[in-house]
Amino acid sequence: MNDDALRVTYRLRAGGAAAAQRAQALALEQSIEMPLEAVSDARVRHEVVARVEGLDAQPDGSTLAHLALSAESIGGDAGQLLNMLFGNSSLLGDVEVVEVRLPEAMAAQFGGPLLGIDGIRDLTNAHGRALTCTALKPIGSSVADLARMTGLFAEAGIDIIKDDHGWAARAHASFEQRIVACQREVDRGNRGRELRTLYAPALCGDAETMREQLEFAQGHGVGMVLVAPMIAGVSNFNALRREFPTMAFLAHPALAGNQIAPAALQGTLFRVFGADAVIFPNHGGRFSYARETCLAIAAAARSTWDGLLPALPVPAGGMSVGRVPEMVADYGIETMLLIGGGLLAAGDALPERSREFAARVAGARRSP
Amino acid sequence: MNDDALRVTYRLRAGGAAAAQRAQALALEQSIEMPLEAVSDARVRHEVVARVEGLDAQPDGSTLAHLALSAESIGGDAGQLLNMLFGNSSLLGDVEVVEVRLPEAMAAQFGGPLLGIDGIRDLTNAHGRALTCTALKPIGSSVADLARMTGLFAEAGIDIIKDDHGWAARAHASFEQRIVACQREVDRGNRGRELRTLYAPALCGDAETMREQLEFAQGHGVGMVLVAPMIAGVSNFNALRREFPTMAFLAHPALAGNQIAPAALQGTLFRVFGADAVIFPNHGGRFSYARETCLAIAAAARSTWDGLLPALPVPAGGMSVGRVPEMVADYGIETMLLIGGGLLAAGDALPERSREFAARVAGARRSP
Repeated sequence: MNDDALRVTYRLRAGGAAAAQRAQALALEQSIEMPLEAVSDARVRHEVVARVEGLDAQPDGSTLAHLALSAESIGGDAGQLLNMLFGNSSLLGDVEVVEVRLPEAMAAQFGGPLLGIDGIRDLTNAHGRALTCTALKPIGSSVADLARMTGLFAEAGIDIIKDDHGWAARAHASFEQRIVACQREVDRGNRGRELRTLYAPALCGDAETMREQLEFAQGHGVGMVLVAPMIAGVSNFNALRREFPTMAFLAHPALAGNQIAPAALQGTLFRVFGADAVIFPNHGGRFSYARETCLAIAAAARSTWDGLLPALPVPAGGMSVGRVPEMVADYGIETMLLIGGGLLAAGDALPERSREFAARVAGARRSP
Repeated sequence: MNDDALRVTYRLRAGGAAAAQRAQALALEQSIEMPLEAVSDARVRHEVVARVEGLDAQPDGSTLAHLALSAESIGGDAGQLLNMLFGNSSLLGDVEVVEVRLPEAMAAQFGGPLLGIDGIRDLTNAHGRALTCTALKPIGSSVADLARMTGLFAEAGIDIIKDDHGWAARAHASFEQRIVACQREVDRGNRGRELRTLYAPALCGDAETMREQLEFAQGHGVGMVLVAPMIAGVSNFNALRREFPTMAFLAHPALAGNQIAPAALQGTLFRVFGADAVIFPNHGGRFSYARETCLAIAAAARSTWDGLLPALPVPAGGMSVGRVPEMVADYGIETMLLIGGGLLAAGDALPERSREFAARVAGARRSP
């Protein structure tokens, strides 16, 4: 195995000799998928077969197995990375991906965020504080209602107004209609002020449809798009990201629930594949991630990584304006807070609550 | 909610009043993602919000919740179907998709298999018996070795010789090199006989790359391709499937391990999205699916469905020639048996074992 291997840590529900055997079986499953004895090609045995580099017994009886996977079997393709990382093992049920470490050359091939945190700050003119984000809900609303909502959020000074991820292309309000109507509203709101609110429409459909949507959006002055890499297919996400280098890409975690640790998938891999910002379910909301899991996602998205820009962590999923100080204390200001339903629940007081959201975030600083 | 709704059964780890509450929360999570009280649009309340249609308490304390999801929110897009079905819920960890029932019009939009079981039988001239399939291993092999292996399998009368799913585009043996070398071997083997062995190369990369690979393969007389819908992105899988209507599509289950019941995802949905044949891990091999799970996948792939062809079930994952009678007894002859490593482990006796595989399947009939 060359030194440019992909390093992966798996958790196995086994200990001792059984764990060593499972780890070796996993190394074969995630590379050549056949008995080692039956491999006659010396090059394959030495350079392609995954290698168990270490085993760490854990107090709970499980074992962390450290494997090295051949970069050749990935070939610079994001889909193949997932495939070699967890394609077949995802069907095993009792194996988890705990950590992924990419060799420098592989990360450079994927390219990572092309705008990253600084790029999003430049687009929005939001500096020295956390960013704010909200969502246009509910799906099925009329274009007029969406435009009204967008105008209101833009006036309140929310940085990013994103589509809900449930919009289908042939929905009641089409992608093109939403772009025209909502982008007009943010443009209006941005007139004569420094802050630049962005509208981030949700891409959907196959890659070719997404490409057309991106072209349409870019042509109408849209600065950011929302896409769910696990639904789009990560190879397509990575390809589109590179085809539209000035567009900010906001990653949605839909269908990302599996046995790949959230920090490894939504933090490290979504970033490597090019997300400028990553939405994830924050603790204490509608989802069950632990606080440590959420902090680990944010850390993976922002960690120092030679040649790779940091991505903006976006904790979300049932957040409220009341939690702003606590969230900024947790995540610091290199973060975007996403509150959707929590604003809309204000009903007639939506403008006030939206302004309150923006103001609280502007005033919040990380606790010492 | 119109009568053309998507019907989904979820298993919730809760009972009684708690289950009713969870089911209602799930209906909101998988549709409008906001509190119902905050929805003012009557059309959205009645036609877009998912509806809990029934709750069945289970003996183990869990509850089956039957939900109806709006077809409008799916818009004929496979990715949106997964999104609305399980996008956010996949992050909950304690919710499972047990069953999916598509309205006729929606299934027709996706189109399902365009060749199906009969089409694959016509392509291979394999009638009145189960089909056989093997895999070219290990990844990393030279083109010459792959060609030699392909020729040997074709001579032995194996119906389908597929790539391993771990081949990357820029691998040691490129996609194009493999096509040229392996297709030449199957063409040679097929000369002067009725049986027509197919070579099924693995697609990888983004959708545009897969499209080019399909064109290249089709131009070289390839009759079937292997693709992992969960890695390619199901919208892309469905789109490519429809763009290449005479090509047989063999679905690989890589990354399909999650909380969607295998029969619902690998059986029903992969079929609806257009797989002519679906590979799944058979019980008693390298994976841990129960026999009932495997039979349910096969049943979902082949069940009578107005307007939708049946897909060929392909049990795999550590099978051996010795298990042929048992597998045919289990699955009947409308099945393709896939044995990869189990053949290659024969070493120098590979030709004999391959012929034995073909002969045993030819002689096997479902037990009375």
